[in-house]
Amino acid sequence: MDSFIDFDTSLISKISTAKSIRDQHGKGASYLKALPPDAVLFADCEEDVISAVKSCYRSGTPLIPFGSGTSLEGHVAAPLGGLSINLSNLNRILSVDVDDFTCRVQPGVTREQLNRHLKGTGLFFPVDPGAGATFGGMVATAASGTNAVRYGTMRENLMGLRIVLSDGSVINTGNKSVKSSAGYNLTQLFCGSEGTLGVITEIQVKLSAMPERLLAGKAVFSSIEKAVESVVELKKMCLSISRIELLDELQLKAINKYLQTDYLESPTLFFELSGSAVSLEAEVGELKSCFKFHGCRNFQFSFDSKEREALWKARYAAHDASSAFYPKAEPWSTDVCVPISKLPHIISITQKKIKASGIFGAIVGHVGDGNFHVIFSIRDANDLKVAKKINGEMIDLAIKADGTCSGEHGIGMGKRDFLAEQVGSSIDVMKRIKQTLDPKSIMNPQKIFI
Amino acid sequence: MDSFIDFDTSLISKISTAKSIRDQHGKGASYLKALPPDAVLFADCEEDVISAVKSCYRSGTPLIPFGSGTSLEGHVAAPLGGLSINLSNLNRILSVDVDDFTCRVQPGVTREQLNRHLKGTGLFFPVDPGAGATFGGMVATAASGTNAVRYGTMRENLMGLRIVLSDGSVINTGNKSVKSSAGYNLTQLFCGSEGTLGVITEIQVKLSAMPERLLAGKAVFSSIEKAVESVVELKKMCLSISRIELLDELQLKAINKYLQTDYLESPTLFFELSGSAVSLEAEVGELKSCFKFHGCRNFQFSFDSKEREALWKARYAAHDASSAFYPKAEPWSTDVCVPISKLPHIISITQKKIKASGIFGAIVGHVGDGNFHVIFSIRDANDLKVAKKINGEMIDLAIKADGTCSGEHGIGMGKRDFLAEQVGSSIDVMKRIKQTLDPKSIMNPQKIFI
Repeated sequence: MDSFIDFDTSLISKISTAKSIRDQHGKGASYLKALPPDAVLFADCEEDVISAVKSCYRSGTPLIPFGSGTSLEGHVAAPLGGLSINLSNLNRILSVDVDDFTCRVQPGVTREQLNRHLKGTGLFFPVDPGAGATFGGMVATAASGTNAVRYGTMRENLMGLRIVLSDGSVINTGNKSVKSSAGYNLTQLFCGSEGTLGVITEIQVKLSAMPERLLAGKAVFSSIEKAVESVVELKKMCLSISRIELLDELQLKAINKYLQTDYLESPTLFFELSGSAVSLEAEVGELKSCFKFHGCRNFQFSFDSKEREALWKARYAAHDASSAFYPKAEPWSTDVCVPISKLPHIISITQKKIKASGIFGAIVGHVGDGNFHVIFSIRDANDLKVAKKINGEMIDLAIKADGTCSGEHGIGMGKRDFLAEQVGSSIDVMKRIKQTLDPKSIMNPQKIFI
Repeated sequence: MDSFIDFDTSLISKISTAKSIRDQHGKGASYLKALPPDAVLFADCEEDVISAVKSCYRSGTPLIPFGSGTSLEGHVAAPLGGLSINLSNLNRILSVDVDDFTCRVQPGVTREQLNRHLKGTGLFFPVDPGAGATFGGMVATAASGTNAVRYGTMRENLMGLRIVLSDGSVINTGNKSVKSSAGYNLTQLFCGSEGTLGVITEIQVKLSAMPERLLAGKAVFSSIEKAVESVVELKKMCLSISRIELLDELQLKAINKYLQTDYLESPTLFFELSGSAVSLEAEVGELKSCFKFHGCRNFQFSFDSKEREALWKARYAAHDASSAFYPKAEPWSTDVCVPISKLPHIISITQKKIKASGIFGAIVGHVGDGNFHVIFSIRDANDLKVAKKINGEMIDLAIKADGTCSGEHGIGMGKRDFLAEQVGSSIDVMKRIKQTLDPKSIMNPQKIFI
């Protein structure tokens, strides 16, 4: 860290330049090489953030917001050095308005923390990215998860933000009404901007009512095509689907190995319906008929909470199971999102490429959204090279199908070239917005685009 | 129109400077004074739009996109003169992808037109602003309507745009996947920007599956408070509410007069549930219990499509009934949106002010969203003055309650001061974005802010 940076004295004790700490802050959960910052500030409050941003602005020092380091595409890397601002101590739940179905949190709050806090209110926050992400990170990457098919992503559940801009000034966006047509939607501009436009210090989100009952189950198919066909049909039936996840053969193999379970190793849909008890009884019959019509080989469901938890435990283990498929391997999780009708084709080509390559890559998808992940288990440089090639080819297919190079992970440093390919000349508009809001290019530089 | 504007010869025959045409393009459905443009271009295709925008850019001439002229806050007025670009001939439905639940339309397509086109597909487009708005206008104002409580607003149903920027260059935003975390969300930036950043020439939207069955009904209460309390409770019950609308005493009086009906003139909720037949039978019982608990005096519902249509005909007549309350009066519809718990207080204060003032103003609200309208019937300059005062006081209350000065109408010229009050210093960020994307200030100038 250049010694000329003039931090406020109150910050000095909160800044570390220890190598181990810097190393931890330069990588996240990415497969990319760590690029450590020069120093890490453990901010305790918004004033710390403002003070640090102002210092960085004066000296032209890069700054990188950091939550829990679970981002997957090098979002927290420091390619130009600078200051990583760790926001995990900004972890207070500021207010909960039960009757208005909303709450306000600091960026270091995690989803699990909020949902524990909401126990007893009848409300919950539905967006559930796999890892222990913070709200700051979830907003910054426009994250989502298994519940998006019913509840939407962070975008649809976000009402407003408080943001420290590059010069240290603070703005509030949005409000506590569920809709607004008042001026440019800055909330949605900052959501998904990956810290390149400002540092988020407060977040207002929508909460959802806990469904009266849940029903979970699984349906095993002989092919990905048949499984996806049945999901398209289901979406037309207006059933109360809150989750519908596709796991391929290899993913189930990895889970069986990891959890010592005996799931059939064939394309499987894990689903959840939520609503009133009466309606679910009726709906599950329709669901079963639809699956059977599309060639489902094995269908099970349960209202029982333990059986439900066991099922979702298996689904949630997908990432770790795939990561651990080879001992001492590193995981790499990538994702694309496409119009759902294109999903079987793109998944099946990707499966063939993985099979032909000899590396391990399992597929798990939020199939109701047309979104799927490949989780590679990378043993060595050659695996990485092969995985990179497959990743690129899969993304090319997704873009050609009018889909996106990232459904929920973001761009970071790993997908910049794909973003440019995908969005064409509109990237110039993004760059002009970046330039006007961050004229010194200090806010998480080299992320999304260079 | 200054003669030095160098329009392409192919455009000349499509441009009118007739006073009657210019007058029709300077007002929309606003209560504000008409401010006619210098000329009107009836564009037939995107090339016409690009050519006109380039001419305006070269000469620094203001240009105002125009759909069907149903906007309420002077969005289409030409305070600095210039060229109105009428887009109603760009009215083709470009593609429908049934399995992907999406379609692409030109900006002049109306909601009714699209829904007629979709007949037989099992899909529909749910966003339903009251008037015959075009998709271009609906995107530009982030419109919504009665279905928003279930299906969201234009924001949540919008996937991508094609936009002509101020220099005539064209960008595409978004794609055909239902979610994306790839770069800045330009789609949401342009949605609600009221033509101040570019002219929309294509729109990709989500479609929804037609529910198996609908059930509509009404519940009469003795007070607004009790009606709203019951809605808060309902939202916690996870019922399949697709619409829930509040009409006040005066609104029902106006409807009875206009449609020769005999609705009880007491605060009433009009509701609709949608889903499978079995689930609706069960849910309507829960709904009734909830309403009764909250003091509902009269409860009726029906699965019958004719009775349902009659009910919604009454609701949809609200605007015209209020407008026509006094003969030869002019309507003025304004709206705010607040956290739902604040709704009874703000509505009841507004009702008292209207009553004390002696003018006519009826209230109809998308109560599930905390959004309500006052529809004034303005006889003369004094009525207008009084209505302006009440409107201002109502908006102040909404902003103080952390709500918004417009839930679905937009800012236009009528609510600029309120927007500034509401969003504070973030308006500077909006202005910087405007400046960078429209450096010559030709795109719908003086709308949203000056």
